[in-house]
Amino acid sequence: MIRTLAITSEKEVVYNQPLRKLNRKNFEWFWVDFQEPTAEETKELSRFFRFHPLAIEDCLEFVQRPKLDFYDQYLFIVVHSINQATLEADEVDIFVSDNYIVTFHKKPVRDMNNLWHRVKQDLLLQESPLQIMYHIIDHLVDDYFPPVYRLEDLINQVEANTSDQTISELMEQIFDIRSQLNKLRRTIIPMRDLLYRIISSSRFNSFKEKHIYLHDIYDHLLKLVEMIDANRELSTDIRDSYLSINSDRMNRVMMTLTVISSIFLPLTFIAGVYGMNFEYMPELSGKYSYFIILGVMFVIGIGMVLFFHRMGWFRFHKGTKL
Amino acid sequence: MIRTLAITSEKEVVYNQPLRKLNRKNFEWFWVDFQEPTAEETKELSRFFRFHPLAIEDCLEFVQRPKLDFYDQYLFIVVHSINQATLEADEVDIFVSDNYIVTFHKKPVRDMNNLWHRVKQDLLLQESPLQIMYHIIDHLVDDYFPPVYRLEDLINQVEANTSDQTISELMEQIFDIRSQLNKLRRTIIPMRDLLYRIISSSRFNSFKEKHIYLHDIYDHLLKLVEMIDANRELSTDIRDSYLSINSDRMNRVMMTLTVISSIFLPLTFIAGVYGMNFEYMPELSGKYSYFIILGVMFVIGIGMVLFFHRMGWFRFHKGTKL
Amino acid sequence: MIRTLAITSEKEVVYNQPLRKLNRKNFEWFWVDFQEPTAEETKELSRFFRFHPLAIEDCLEFVQRPKLDFYDQYLFIVVHSINQATLEADEVDIFVSDNYIVTFHKKPVRDMNNLWHRVKQDLLLQESPLQIMYHIIDHLVDDYFPPVYRLEDLINQVEANTSDQTISELMEQIFDIRSQLNKLRRTIIPMRDLLYRIISSSRFNSFKEKHIYLHDIYDHLLKLVEMIDANRELSTDIRDSYLSINSDRMNRVMMTLTVISSIFLPLTFIAGVYGMNFEYMPELSGKYSYFIILGVMFVIGIGMVLFFHRMGWFRFHKGTKL
Amino acid sequence: MIRTLAITSEKEVVYNQPLRKLNRKNFEWFWVDFQEPTAEETKELSRFFRFHPLAIEDCLEFVQRPKLDFYDQYLFIVVHSINQATLEADEVDIFVSDNYIVTFHKKPVRDMNNLWHRVKQDLLLQESPLQIMYHIIDHLVDDYFPPVYRLEDLINQVEANTSDQTISELMEQIFDIRSQLNKLRRTIIPMRDLLYRIISSSRFNSFKEKHIYLHDIYDHLLKLVEMIDANRELSTDIRDSYLSINSDRMNRVMMTLTVISSIFLPLTFIAGVYGMNFEYMPELSGKYSYFIILGVMFVIGIGMVLFFHRMGWFRFHKGTKL
Amino acid sequence: MIRTLAITSEKEVVYNQPLRKLNRKNFEWFWVDFQEPTAEETKELSRFFRFHPLAIEDCLEFVQRPKLDFYDQYLFIVVHSINQATLEADEVDIFVSDNYIVTFHKKPVRDMNNLWHRVKQDLLLQESPLQIMYHIIDHLVDDYFPPVYRLEDLINQVEANTSDQTISELMEQIFDIRSQLNKLRRTIIPMRDLLYRIISSSRFNSFKEKHIYLHDIYDHLLKLVEMIDANRELSTDIRDSYLSINSDRMNRVMMTLTVISSIFLPLTFIAGVYGMNFEYMPELSGKYSYFIILGVMFVIGIGMVLFFHRMGWFRFHKGTKL
Repeated sequence: MIRTLAITSEKEVVYNQPLRKLNRKNFEWFWVDFQEPTAEETKELSRFFRFHPLAIEDCLEFVQRPKLDFYDQYLFIVVHSINQATLEADEVDIFVSDNYIVTFHKKPVRDMNNLWHRVKQDLLLQESPLQIMYHIIDHLVDDYFPPVYRLEDLINQVEANTSDQTISELMEQIFDIRSQLNKLRRTIIPMRDLLYRIISSSRFNSFKEKHIYLHDIYDHLLKLVEMIDANRELSTDIRDSYLSINSDRMNRVMMTLTVISSIFLPLTFIAGVYGMNFEYMPELSGKYSYFIILGVMFVIGIGMVLFFHRMGWFRFHKGTKL
Repeated sequence: MIRTLAITSEKEVVYNQPLRKLNRKNFEWFWVDFQEPTAEETKELSRFFRFHPLAIEDCLEFVQRPKLDFYDQYLFIVVHSINQATLEADEVDIFVSDNYIVTFHKKPVRDMNNLWHRVKQDLLLQESPLQIMYHIIDHLVDDYFPPVYRLEDLINQVEANTSDQTISELMEQIFDIRSQLNKLRRTIIPMRDLLYRIISSSRFNSFKEKHIYLHDIYDHLLKLVEMIDANRELSTDIRDSYLSINSDRMNRVMMTLTVISSIFLPLTFIAGVYGMNFEYMPELSGKYSYFIILGVMFVIGIGMVLFFHRMGWFRFHKGTKL
Repeated sequence: MIRTLAITSEKEVVYNQPLRKLNRKNFEWFWVDFQEPTAEETKELSRFFRFHPLAIEDCLEFVQRPKLDFYDQYLFIVVHSINQATLEADEVDIFVSDNYIVTFHKKPVRDMNNLWHRVKQDLLLQESPLQIMYHIIDHLVDDYFPPVYRLEDLINQVEANTSDQTISELMEQIFDIRSQLNKLRRTIIPMRDLLYRIISSSRFNSFKEKHIYLHDIYDHLLKLVEMIDANRELSTDIRDSYLSINSDRMNRVMMTLTVISSIFLPLTFIAGVYGMNFEYMPELSGKYSYFIILGVMFVIGIGMVLFFHRMGWFRFHKGTKL
Repeated sequence: MIRTLAITSEKEVVYNQPLRKLNRKNFEWFWVDFQEPTAEETKELSRFFRFHPLAIEDCLEFVQRPKLDFYDQYLFIVVHSINQATLEADEVDIFVSDNYIVTFHKKPVRDMNNLWHRVKQDLLLQESPLQIMYHIIDHLVDDYFPPVYRLEDLINQVEANTSDQTISELMEQIFDIRSQLNKLRRTIIPMRDLLYRIISSSRFNSFKEKHIYLHDIYDHLLKLVEMIDANRELSTDIRDSYLSINSDRMNRVMMTLTVISSIFLPLTFIAGVYGMNFEYMPELSGKYSYFIILGVMFVIGIGMVLFFHRMGWFRFHKGTKL
Repeated sequence: MIRTLAITSEKEVVYNQPLRKLNRKNFEWFWVDFQEPTAEETKELSRFFRFHPLAIEDCLEFVQRPKLDFYDQYLFIVVHSINQATLEADEVDIFVSDNYIVTFHKKPVRDMNNLWHRVKQDLLLQESPLQIMYHIIDHLVDDYFPPVYRLEDLINQVEANTSDQTISELMEQIFDIRSQLNKLRRTIIPMRDLLYRIISSSRFNSFKEKHIYLHDIYDHLLKLVEMIDANRELSTDIRDSYLSINSDRMNRVMMTLTVISSIFLPLTFIAGVYGMNFEYMPELSGKYSYFIILGVMFVIGIGMVLFFHRMGWFRFHKGTKL
């Protein structure tokens, strides 16, 4: 679908003009939006606008890194919107000159619609194609925040662990959260680099008036990267803390097992010895033999307990001097 | 609440002038402080001062990255104070021109009050709006130190572990300390970047006279970041050392268990064999059978001990050649 | 094998001219391709072209870092193609001046053949030696993508683990994938640095017209590095998650063992005591002794279970508060 | 204590002149050293020298980051000496102009004394206040080396582990060494940054003559940082290697335990079965029952050994294919 | 030993001239080589050449960081050769002006000898002292490759683990390889930084003609650093993979132990109960008691097996869904 919107010199908006009527003479500036374009419509990029083949190729490729190219008559910019459900990046291609803006996107982009209709308002009528581009980028970047906030909430839930989940499930959750943070990071970092290039480019002088707007978007991208990195570190910390605590727990479990085995294995052996059926075992006939052996067992048991106590194993769960 | 303070050309301080009387003609410079402003008061930002809509929007947003924007007539700066209890960042917005300073903050900021009252003193009367801004930032950054020192003390406590806590509690403490260090880091790093931008900006020439003051604040921020990073590393080191020591401890526990099991399980089996009730077991009737078996058991036990000793398991807790 | 191709001033292509006929007077520009050259053919590099000895030495060395050298009459560039099977880098050496391009490679390079034959087409006839070089580099870099995509698929398979493999096999797979990612990274990083040097070089002005083409290749290389780094992180995350889950699993196994041992070892000991054959054991003759002892065993068993339950060991597999 | 030293135009040294006599007219240059100054003496910084309040405040503060400030008439530099016993940093503040140097330090600094007395020598008489400052910094930095060498030796000892220590003690030693390396690093890194700022500062032209001297100090600081980082990595490597070896050792211990338990627990169970006292147990009366059961036990035991052997557990301590 | 070599204006080589005859008038350029110089010979550095005391001090110091200093009449450069056996760095000091090169090294350096004799050849006669310096550095850097290749081979051996070594021995080998890689890295990184400084220095214009030679050395150093870093990562990966596999192996060992203990401990307990010698145990006299108890034991054993099977422990060695 191709939508067109043109601003006359009297600041009136005219919709749905055919492409051939859109020119510098008739209109102050115009906006052409290719939304889910057909193959036939796509051809207008070269037929009507005569854009560079390399730029058109970039429009048709599936996932392209955000980029900025300067052509003689226009500049070509590729930005990424984020699909809120899958966190995949969708591509939006923008051509901007002083009297037109062309947007090209294979999937409908919500913000584009809003802007399209807000152009009727006086505020936006005073603006230029470059500022429309600023609004588009600004809205796309604003859409990066909700998924980051959602992942931050998820991490806080994992940390509090109020839900009724096993450790393995929690680890899988952390793994999933990290995968998604990385996916977002891979979209946001190139966008940040792109904004930095725009801000620091000396060939962007006509755009420099809008410097504060661009710095604002750039600050948002910096904040996003900082949030993602902080959450990645937090998730690593949760996992490492869990491993430390688990290692301590395992230690105490092993000590319990060892103490109990060390006490009862020798005692059971002694009992086994006197359960043997040899015909001639002199100890068996003594009147107090049974009680003497019970006493010996008691002494061995207490001795083991004292030994492990002195080794500090029973105190182990208390603070250990590093 | 809006407070105003104006300095006449005779260097006298006049308090609580209405906004409309504050202008270049009447006063050398003046300071307007918006503390917990109402919605109505907030409107004066655009009505009286005619600040840029983007800057006003930044004042109203909840948490904004520290930033610096140059407008034609004034500069707009966003800085962060740290809430000593929660370690959350609170935002302070400052507009500065050559003859006024406007401060805007949703929560009361202690340092602002002190400065406000110190302006009566001669020292501060000689100063300009830019220097008031310097004092505000300086005091905010000074307030970053106490929480960092507090966390440093906590880590040293964990390291010494004089308190009566289990390992798991210590690990949780390290986790908490690291979370708080990261929270502080996220506030301090952008402030450091902001100060760097101010110091290195070529558009800041009128402010360059105060270069030494700004370098002083910048050095404090560098020191803060270094302290935080050092403490983060220290906490990682404590955790890693604990894991190493724990792993060694576990090893010794396992060896104890294995040695005791390996000695007594075979012996108990032998005792079990001669405890069986078969009618025809030739060994049982021998006169010395019992003593022979006891001897065999003794030999097996001693053999196991010697074997494990030769394997070096008993020496294991002593220095192991890497 | 030496192939030659020359473009006349009438834009016609002439193949297989002897080297001595190739000069500025006869042809607008020409391309000489050394493919798997013999020692004799290699000598033409110095004999006919008089290239710098250092550059010729670089052609003959086995694996050279991608590089760019400016000589007076030509520039010398070394790039790497990737062998799709082994992921090893093969070297392609290119000499470019304004009227010739010389390519030198010890192994056949598929893309070179394609380009060679496409020069007949009008499109490529309009181009210069520099653009031929651009096409060669572009195709080589495009060939970097398939192995990266293949490794990405492999990692996703390991993560889903639908195949019937043991953990050790999976770990070996991750190890292999990481080795290959590192191998690719070692080829791609120097190529990226080379492209950066070309783009930012001030001595490359005649080439600057093709700036957009070069930025396109550079963006592809950046994307490749980002993909590789993301997959390396993902593989680390998979391994770390596995270790966490395994540690949790081990803990539960150990707890099971400890609980069962702690319950049955003492009970077996008691049974062993009353299985001893002492002549005088007063308890044995009591009528209810057997049932009393069974009761005692039952109480001890239940006590152990309750104790471990209170210790939280049975609940351990449920969410643990960090 | 305030010491003074002045050089006349005849290159003679005059000691202990009162401050008021020290001026440009009387002497070519002079050096005033505040060592452990009293509060009264400290006041001379502002009273006699009229230094900037901010610089004086930096002198009085306890630990200040190394810094360099340019004032109109002098430059102010803060450097750190290292206390050889505690590895804590002590502050030395230096004011330098073209005809005086003022040093201020709360604790006695050994090198200052040496220099003070060496000024009598011809060599040092030819020098300027700036070069005295160079000598002071050079000596302070030289004092950084002994503690780094000492820690390097300690790490090598831990690696060789010739001493008679437990693993836990070794881990504590590594932890201590790392803490001290980090402490040194925190002093040395800011000094390195300071030297870099001095070398690259364009406002330091009068000092540029001594460029080679400064580069020499800077190289020493770089070398120190490299040594510290290498030793930190080495200590991490030692710990990681220990963990790997320990994990392997634990594995073998566990296998031993498992093999022995798996062989003897079933056998003991069988022996227990035939030790039961049921009145009707048909197997008990057979003539060869005992030998048959012994044979069965033998077969089970050998079977277990063969099973574990086939599983590769006995070969485990030998090289495992990754 | 001091060797001298001088080139006359007729391009002839004269050996072993005494130092006093070496001057600009007699010879086009000359080379003086101090190999293992005596204290007396060393004095010629200041006596005959009048080099700066700081440079001479650097020659005498034991291990100096590679460096480059510009003096008025000459430049002073310190480079490192690598001792192939110990991987320690040996220092080579070089003074270069437009008509002489002085090399100073405490140990014999093989490459110096080769160069010394190759100067007879025409090729080298055409060269200048600066180019001799280039050749020396080039050869020294070429000597860095063999130990890196040797370590790379060692790592590949460890990975394949064809040799008959225990895991602990392999870990020790990895530790050794890493130590040696780090040692090399500490020599190579400063050399790389030095080459970078030479290439980018604006004061090196007379040397810029040789830019391509220097870039060649620099590329070799970059390649060396990349190889070392890749091998360090590989060794870390091998260790981490081993830990993962070991952890998995341990898990399976523990499961075996737990399953066997959990089956036989309860059964042995039951056997023990009926082995007790109480006079009144009603179950003992029943005709089918023995078979009933055997049946109960069988049911408990099978139940345990089914329980662990359902828990997935027997399938555990198969692929686990992450």
